[in-house]
Amino acid sequence: MVISGANDLVVKQEFQLAGIKLSSGQDFGPLVVAYETYGQLAPARDNAILIFHALSGDAHVAGRYAPTDKKPGWWDSLVGRGKAFDTDKYFIICANVLGGCQGSTGPSSINPQTQRPYGLDFPLITIKDMVNVQVALLDQLGIERLQAAVGGSMGGMLALQLAVDWPERVANIIAVATAARVSAQNIAFNEVGRRAILSNPHDGLAIARMIGHITYLSDDLMREKFGRKTADRQSFAANFNDPQFAVESYLQYKGAAFTERFDANSYLYITKAIDLFNLADDGGGNLEQALAKSRSRFLVVHFSSDWLFPEYQALEIVKAIMNNNGHVSYRAIDSSYGHDAFLLESDQLGTIITSFLAGAK
Amino acid sequence: MVISGANDLVVKQEFQLAGIKLSSGQDFGPLVVAYETYGQLAPARDNAILIFHALSGDAHVAGRYAPTDKKPGWWDSLVGRGKAFDTDKYFIICANVLGGCQGSTGPSSINPQTQRPYGLDFPLITIKDMVNVQVALLDQLGIERLQAAVGGSMGGMLALQLAVDWPERVANIIAVATAARVSAQNIAFNEVGRRAILSNPHDGLAIARMIGHITYLSDDLMREKFGRKTADRQSFAANFNDPQFAVESYLQYKGAAFTERFDANSYLYITKAIDLFNLADDGGGNLEQALAKSRSRFLVVHFSSDWLFPEYQALEIVKAIMNNNGHVSYRAIDSSYGHDAFLLESDQLGTIITSFLAGAK
Repeated sequence: MVISGANDLVVKQEFQLAGIKLSSGQDFGPLVVAYETYGQLAPARDNAILIFHALSGDAHVAGRYAPTDKKPGWWDSLVGRGKAFDTDKYFIICANVLGGCQGSTGPSSINPQTQRPYGLDFPLITIKDMVNVQVALLDQLGIERLQAAVGGSMGGMLALQLAVDWPERVANIIAVATAARVSAQNIAFNEVGRRAILSNPHDGLAIARMIGHITYLSDDLMREKFGRKTADRQSFAANFNDPQFAVESYLQYKGAAFTERFDANSYLYITKAIDLFNLADDGGGNLEQALAKSRSRFLVVHFSSDWLFPEYQALEIVKAIMNNNGHVSYRAIDSSYGHDAFLLESDQLGTIITSFLAGAK
Repeated sequence: MVISGANDLVVKQEFQLAGIKLSSGQDFGPLVVAYETYGQLAPARDNAILIFHALSGDAHVAGRYAPTDKKPGWWDSLVGRGKAFDTDKYFIICANVLGGCQGSTGPSSINPQTQRPYGLDFPLITIKDMVNVQVALLDQLGIERLQAAVGGSMGGMLALQLAVDWPERVANIIAVATAARVSAQNIAFNEVGRRAILSNPHDGLAIARMIGHITYLSDDLMREKFGRKTADRQSFAANFNDPQFAVESYLQYKGAAFTERFDANSYLYITKAIDLFNLADDGGGNLEQALAKSRSRFLVVHFSSDWLFPEYQALEIVKAIMNNNGHVSYRAIDSSYGHDAFLLESDQLGTIITSFLAGAK
């Protein structure tokens, strides 16, 4: 086991799994799961917290691989010594999802039957499948029951699905900036990104990411951050390639950078899994009945300017748990960061998480 | 002159213009302007109303070309005998904008110097340029002063620009679901559409249109209209081409249909003109000073669920006119149709327009 914490270096680890039965009924394997851990598993094996990443995230939730790394992991502000997910207290696990492209088996992995990348021969996967692969990882690590499962955006969907499908394996759920099922508008944005990728995988992935970034920011923040500020260029030529406005430079940069680190096919499969996710399916179409299967305490967090996952979606989860007489805390955080707030509002989010975990049995 | 009304057939007409000086300083010509008229110009030539179309609109604002036409023009609910723009009373004019692809000179027109379509050699054009071309059309028609200029979305921008640049030529302005300058978010959506077109003109135009349609509808309406309703297909295969959800079918259909009738380069040039439009530029960066140049009465209309052109943008115009002690009426219409409401809320909009025009001198 790698000893790691706020000041230690982290190492990416791999778990080999012979195979799983997918939601589609198909047997699929062998699989690799890339994951990282932080802190120490207690002798009683009762201090583990599983963090699920979002669409474009990965297992590298905190810390650095080398002292020279420019950036730490994506939730470093919340994971480490003395932080909300205190690595002096908890054993933190984060794994790259099935279908991803950061070490876990996905469309860019080599298909052992053809010795070439799966590409679009990769099977359709669901949020349930992603969860089941990580439950297998917990088995491997000897963790019977998690202290908590946590996630923002798509990560929150995995946390909710774990609560319903594996009620005995998790005591507390922290679902941030997420939904029990995405809206038609959300499906629509995902579908446009997929059409762009199917038309041209490289350019299309950049376009999909640009759309993503628009939906992650609030109109208010965009106005404040960019407004109508122009890019360096100020000519009157009909030049559609160079950015005219600062917001265009930002999106072009973000889109291009994404193509360096992400696989276009992973984008197709993961967004499809998001669209297909509907927790109510586990209750015969009824969300309350689905959540009645859970035995966990819940913390649901919404950010005021998040229009990709609007408040009615958070409240739908909260009401369903309340109607089941379940334990749920709801917090709406005032923020102008839009959906991105789950990555940026660390102070407010950290305080709320610390307090919720302190109340855990 | 073609006699036309609610029950008459309309004819597309053409006006030839030797050339104009563009905002960029470039002389450009010759030009063709496709336009339609409805009703009769009064002997005093004082009953003309100019309607400006939106991004994807055209000169065919009302009526039918042939009795067998399946659909009438795009604002047929408001233009005709006894309607808000009553053709028994007013002489209605609507022209396809410069840069368009429905009869007026645009990137798909033949460049006389090369005998091939302009394509990306078409010059950069602005909302001001579009207005100036239509003022030339008014000259040609012998109309010194319009009773009103009207437009929704981009059409509203042209109406506002006319009011500021040609104050003596228009008595009343009706600006619907529009802004004195678009937001960073709006520029961002336009830019994503342009990137898609530059990557692949045909598929990209469909993608740009899909993005457009998402922004034209409200989240509420999408939820009501599509929700998570599935398309006919219900298989568990990883098939990204066929729609899974009804909202995907809708967008794919709309995107594909648009490529049949619209030119990808026109989309580039017109969205760029929208992004560059900033009425405040005519007041040295100050909107109030820009609008102080106008002599018109204004009606500004906003729709409650229009998130592409939010209420703060409508109010910005209203406040600037009020601070100038100008005459302005403001109406916020309660509607769930989003930005599309300007095409759909004919009853409410018609009543408001009728009342505003009745108060006109």
